Amino acid sequence: MSAIPNNAIPEKTIERLSEYRRTLKACHEQGITHIFSHVLAGIHGITAVQVRRDLMLIGFSSDTKKGYDVEVLIGFISSILDGRGPMNIAVIGMGNLGQALTKYFNGRGLTLRIVASFDVDPEKTGHTIDDIPCYPMEEFEERVDDLDIKIIILSSPTEVASELVVPIINAGIKGVLNFTSKPLNFPRGIVVENYDITTLLEKVAYFVKENEETTL
Amino acid sequence: MSAIPNNAIPEKTIERLSEYRRTLKACHEQGITHIFSHVLAGIHGITAVQVRRDLMLIGFSSDTKKGYDVEVLIGFISSILDGRGPMNIAVIGMGNLGQALTKYFNGRGLTLRIVASFDVDPEKTGHTIDDIPCYPMEEFEERVDDLDIKIIILSSPTEVASELVVPIINAGIKGVLNFTSKPLNFPRGIVVENYDITTLLEKVAYFVKENEETTL
Repeated sequence: MSAIPNNAIPEKTIERLSEYRRTLKACHEQGITHIFSHVLAGIHGITAVQVRRDLMLIGFSSDTKKGYDVEVLIGFISSILDGRGPMNIAVIGMGNLGQALTKYFNGRGLTLRIVASFDVDPEKTGHTIDDIPCYPMEEFEERVDDLDIKIIILSSPTEVASELVVPIINAGIKGVLNFTSKPLNFPRGIVVENYDITTLLEKVAYFVKENEETTL
Repeated sequence: MSAIPNNAIPEKTIERLSEYRRTLKACHEQGITHIFSHVLAGIHGITAVQVRRDLMLIGFSSDTKKGYDVEVLIGFISSILDGRGPMNIAVIGMGNLGQALTKYFNGRGLTLRIVASFDVDPEKTGHTIDDIPCYPMEEFEERVDDLDIKIIILSSPTEVASELVVPIINAGIKGVLNFTSKPLNFPRGIVVENYDITTLLEKVAYFVKENEETTL
């Protein structure tokens, strides 16, 4: 990721806070009221020290003999992650991946809401896909403005990813989650997360081979 | 990720090697024969020192006045990542995300090959989806053995993710890339990458807000 202000909480801590919150919500639904740092750590495959350090970084320290109060901690993490209310998101590229991501994010009760999608395929534009309207790319700038869209999920074919950089800048987008295989650079002030899923798979495969070699 | 042997190359270096290789392959296709560490670094939004350190870690140091030889470096990284030949993969859960991931990975000429998928929906099983046969979950253990499947991409509904842990262990799977929202724990010897895409989006949103606050 680039263009991160220096005084911010570290990237990895933010990722873990997001993960802790999901676990805490699942605990809450099951009626669990308190959780120890080592239990939370165990679920996420990290150390209790790491959990405590992350929570200290956001100023949360009410660890009692019963562990953390689940509901209070959810609220505390949410105040950090969701900050000043909901944020509107659009998807560019409603192929398989775009549609999967839209289904994935919607109906999750997140403060992040997908409100529009864009494509160049006339079979898709003018319709709603999973309740999300799909607009032609020509209307991109206008719709981003009207709908107050701040973040783009980019799931276009990799070949056209570069061509989308300038329209995204011109529309005043503030954050891009890039799922194409082409890492994109944006000017300072636009947050970019370049994420090629192949990397995840290659990483797992590498460590599987490492494990095999050490156990041979 | 858990269950990583201590002597292995760090996770983050493996991720970046995978990303460098994709960039280098794209350069190679465009006829670029040499690349400087700072150019490679710029494309990925990191420092040249980081690039050089990563390549030093894998024992590559042939930086010349013309920069790295693209073709040689691709071969070198591939020898690390692809190691001892191809590896077979299966997808569990052929909903939207499963189908998107299958399309995404196939036809990329990776040494990682999706050879099968599994689902409980009789509308899907017995057919091929994107040229990949879809089998019922009852045949899981048998097919994993027959097809020499080492890695599972888990894209089932989150609600059933926990129930899949035991069948995955019993089938002798060595690595799991988990795309459900439930972090899963496996015994030592099975590599797990728990990846909830929501985390990425929440991270981008957090830093967009941070940027807004610092520029207000």
